Amino acid sequence: MVEFFQQELELPAFNRGYHIITRHIVENCSFLPQLETGILHIFIQHTSASLTINENADPSVREDFKSYFDRIAPENASYYTHTQEGSDDMPAHLKNALLGSSLSIPVSQGRLNLGIWQGIYLCEHRNRGGRRRLVLSAWGNSRNKLS
Amino acid sequence: MVEFFQQELELPAFNRGYHIITRHIVENCSFLPQLETGILHIFIQHTSASLTINENADPSVREDFKSYFDRIAPENASYYTHTQEGSDDMPAHLKNALLGSSLSIPVSQGRLNLGIWQGIYLCEHRNRGGRRRLVLSAWGNSRNKLS
Amino acid sequence: MVEFFQQELELPAFNRGYHIITRHIVENCSFLPQLETGILHIFIQHTSASLTINENADPSVREDFKSYFDRIAPENASYYTHTQEGSDDMPAHLKNALLGSSLSIPVSQGRLNLGIWQGIYLCEHRNRGGRRRLVLSAWGNSRNKLS
Repeated sequence: MVEFFQQELELPAFNRGYHIITRHIVENCSFLPQLETGILHIFIQHTSASLTINENADPSVREDFKSYFDRIAPENASYYTHTQEGSDDMPAHLKNALLGSSLSIPVSQGRLNLGIWQGIYLCEHRNRGGRRRLVLSAWGNSRNKLS
Repeated sequence: MVEFFQQELELPAFNRGYHIITRHIVENCSFLPQLETGILHIFIQHTSASLTINENADPSVREDFKSYFDRIAPENASYYTHTQEGSDDMPAHLKNALLGSSLSIPVSQGRLNLGIWQGIYLCEHRNRGGRRRLVLSAWGNSRNKLS
Repeated sequence: MVEFFQQELELPAFNRGYHIITRHIVENCSFLPQLETGILHIFIQHTSASLTINENADPSVREDFKSYFDRIAPENASYYTHTQEGSDDMPAHLKNALLGSSLSIPVSQGRLNLGIWQGIYLCEHRNRGGRRRLVLSAWGNSRNKLS
């Protein structure tokens, strides 16, 4: 039987940069263990922070992400007109568009079916982004045969 | 009870640039009010126009999007070989890959559960893209307790 | 009645570059014909290969994709610190973040409801990426009225 679940989740505040939040998501998602096979959808309700999937092992990857995206969406570009919210704001919107606002990840036997090197990144593009709100949704075949 | 809905929707033609279409989507999506909790999936059937989510307030953000993406995926790059469909065509394909062809947005109590500053952008990358076709799909728990 | 399906699929090894895999997906997805309306979700379990949708006709588009992404996420950038896994590794992670790890495509009458020019690309960012693992999930209204 196919079921659909949804909850909201507020993350703690993170520094500007790229942070692995896989464990935080899994531990705070009440319905993940109830799915035999399904999808977990994670949506961030902000336009200056993103979600992406990338390497979960060597922290140097996340450092290089920061260097890279700060270069391809730089602060204070001469042609920016949206400048009143701070020099980190317009680059944050652009990075958000490049990296995306949501993820969809397969669930198998009650667990995220990620590759062995894959982790979920919170990409915080603002200097002081504060706490970020997520909406977690999941659907698929329930493990509860009686449901 | 979980239900699944789908319809096609043709947008009016837009100028090259970034346009907020949130209201147009909501007003033309017949099944959104029927979902207690769910997901709305929006898919664009084109390779030279994209969908993304970003700030819905200050129009200068959309202006800067245009300036930015025209710079990082420029026309007439010396190494392009796909040039027969016009100088705006290959950049349109690249922008489409960077920005994406679909969105998945949570639905709660019959409404899109977007953050307060989030809007849906149609990103028209061609000079004369014409009308664009979308496929809207939605699924989740029905508000109709008898269904 | 809404149903949910899931299977894993291993792709053959591809050379570094951009490859159309639409037919391979369709021919190896057992449940696609069973959906009247639905969504096919394709997830790649790797951080150095991506999935995207783009033009399925002229091969020059895929050639230009290779030239473009090799330029915007170059090898041997002076500021990379993640360099121990080869000069193609850090660019592969960045391209993966720009292009994405999953696709969601509408299904209508048992077939992918893509636009006429749209094809599914496997984006192989490593010189020797080997075989890549996908997880295919689909859900929607079953064509089997008795199910």
